[in-house]
Amino acid sequence: MTADEPIGPAVVTGGAGAIGAVLCHALARQGREVRVIDNLSAGRRSHLADLEGRARFRLHVADLTDANAELAPIFAGASEVWHLAANTDIRKGTADPSIDFTQGSVATFHVLEAARHAHVPKVFFASSSVVYGYPTVFPTPEEYGPLMPQSHYGAAKLAAEGLVSAHCHSFDMKGYIFRFANIIGPGMTHGVLYDFFEKLRRDPTRLEVLGDGRQSKSYLRVEDCVDAMILAGRRAQKTVNIFNLGTPDRASVKEIAEAVVAAAGGHARIDYTGGERGWTGDIPQQLLAIDRISALGWAPKSGSRAAIDRTIREFAEERGLPGR
Amino acid sequence: MTADEPIGPAVVTGGAGAIGAVLCHALARQGREVRVIDNLSAGRRSHLADLEGRARFRLHVADLTDANAELAPIFAGASEVWHLAANTDIRKGTADPSIDFTQGSVATFHVLEAARHAHVPKVFFASSSVVYGYPTVFPTPEEYGPLMPQSHYGAAKLAAEGLVSAHCHSFDMKGYIFRFANIIGPGMTHGVLYDFFEKLRRDPTRLEVLGDGRQSKSYLRVEDCVDAMILAGRRAQKTVNIFNLGTPDRASVKEIAEAVVAAAGGHARIDYTGGERGWTGDIPQQLLAIDRISALGWAPKSGSRAAIDRTIREFAEERGLPGR
Repeated sequence: MTADEPIGPAVVTGGAGAIGAVLCHALARQGREVRVIDNLSAGRRSHLADLEGRARFRLHVADLTDANAELAPIFAGASEVWHLAANTDIRKGTADPSIDFTQGSVATFHVLEAARHAHVPKVFFASSSVVYGYPTVFPTPEEYGPLMPQSHYGAAKLAAEGLVSAHCHSFDMKGYIFRFANIIGPGMTHGVLYDFFEKLRRDPTRLEVLGDGRQSKSYLRVEDCVDAMILAGRRAQKTVNIFNLGTPDRASVKEIAEAVVAAAGGHARIDYTGGERGWTGDIPQQLLAIDRISALGWAPKSGSRAAIDRTIREFAEERGLPGR
Repeated sequence: MTADEPIGPAVVTGGAGAIGAVLCHALARQGREVRVIDNLSAGRRSHLADLEGRARFRLHVADLTDANAELAPIFAGASEVWHLAANTDIRKGTADPSIDFTQGSVATFHVLEAARHAHVPKVFFASSSVVYGYPTVFPTPEEYGPLMPQSHYGAAKLAAEGLVSAHCHSFDMKGYIFRFANIIGPGMTHGVLYDFFEKLRRDPTRLEVLGDGRQSKSYLRVEDCVDAMILAGRRAQKTVNIFNLGTPDRASVKEIAEAVVAAAGGHARIDYTGGERGWTGDIPQQLLAIDRISALGWAPKSGSRAAIDRTIREFAEERGLPGR
């Protein structure tokens, strides 16, 4: 942001979530006023405990899927909105596609319309590598197409990208779209690390792994992810700016399972259910080209394996090590 | 379709529209049972007059944006759905984005869910070249990315592509997505030819053209478009099959304006409003790579200029020549 650009409040949807809370803290550290909208379904109030009560912070508990939610006062005077709120459970969306349609597409439409009516000039959107479907090019560049998402989570992310693009081109807004690899860190309520810890807690003798364990993806620490988004907001100036965010390396599900079991004392047997995919809609291979965001001067502080090891240590401290 | 594949009824949404009606006639000629769903907002009952009353044809007047519309009986036993219903006025969607969100994204979600619940195995979707936004590659291939639509019409088409893809990958359906160039033919209620005829009807002395007239796009006859879709449904067998549909050539808006004025007697003055784009969200240059659909054995019978000349003659017969 240049010195003469007015810096108004930032609205953060999903700000009580695992990524949103780290973003809120980063924005608050910069002296920004932060207004969080979260329905606290996956987000936790405790993530924001040290911000609540501050004059320049406010948590609004509201449901973005509700067309009648009173968003206007929250968006009034804001200089940007960070739209991170979404269903976080990809698998749930396969059983009931209305979850992602409502919590993804419909909620995003409401957020963008609120931003438009309040003349908010910048919108940041947390998209996902799953918009690529199962790509044939690795590392996958932002230019890859056609985009054939395999899950309704992915369909909702793609729909939201299109809405951001149309709003920005139609209404004098700038858009920042980030296609996330697997973002990991403390406070997560989903994902492979969370699942493994939960399974070991229920049965410390055995860890069931969905698929053959050869699924291999990029894991990015949440702090690296937030740094990249803030940097992109300062340096990228197109009408719509789109960036993959990931690490240059990846880790297999087998590696992760073994690391979790080792951290828990090494007593659990690992059972693979077999098959290339963990579940319907799982994308077994994922590696994003990060040349675009790197060209802005960003590099992740942790590669995939370091990110995983650190997150395992945090989970163990946060929740106790299962099986020990 | 192979000889032993059971051929059940075809559901056609937007079947009373200019493209839908030609499709319905083609399917009926093949002996197919056709069930049309249309709210008759842009579609016209008269397009289907010679099919109505037949035993194997039924027009259901229903609104696909209504979550409570009784779609189940219409989809029961169908072997495919052709989803063509949509808002047809791209410009209207810039003034009010909820039009395309509701008539595009929401309606498509309802159609796909009805198809899923009825176990309809094939879904055909009429997408558009506008999903490409303003591409940097011409002719634009299906692999082009990132997809940054500039209008809410385009955002809704992109969202619908993602929904088709997610449904097909999740629920054992096959998907056929067609990205249309400008499809022209009789019975249209929008588009550049329609607009020029309407303007000359109001004032036969003067034709106002939005933009500098150098916008240059591909124009495909509706019969060629329908032939391509039916062929793709027979020959393409991936989970999701995506095809550009257009001509290998294009025509400028200036050429079209001059052809319309010449057909009307050549008395009108042509005034250009200037600027590269006709309106906010207009994509001034459009030419689609059609290698994929051509590889299946399809070629358009008319190029852009022949398609335009034929459509002008039909308009003149259908509606009378303005200014004569």
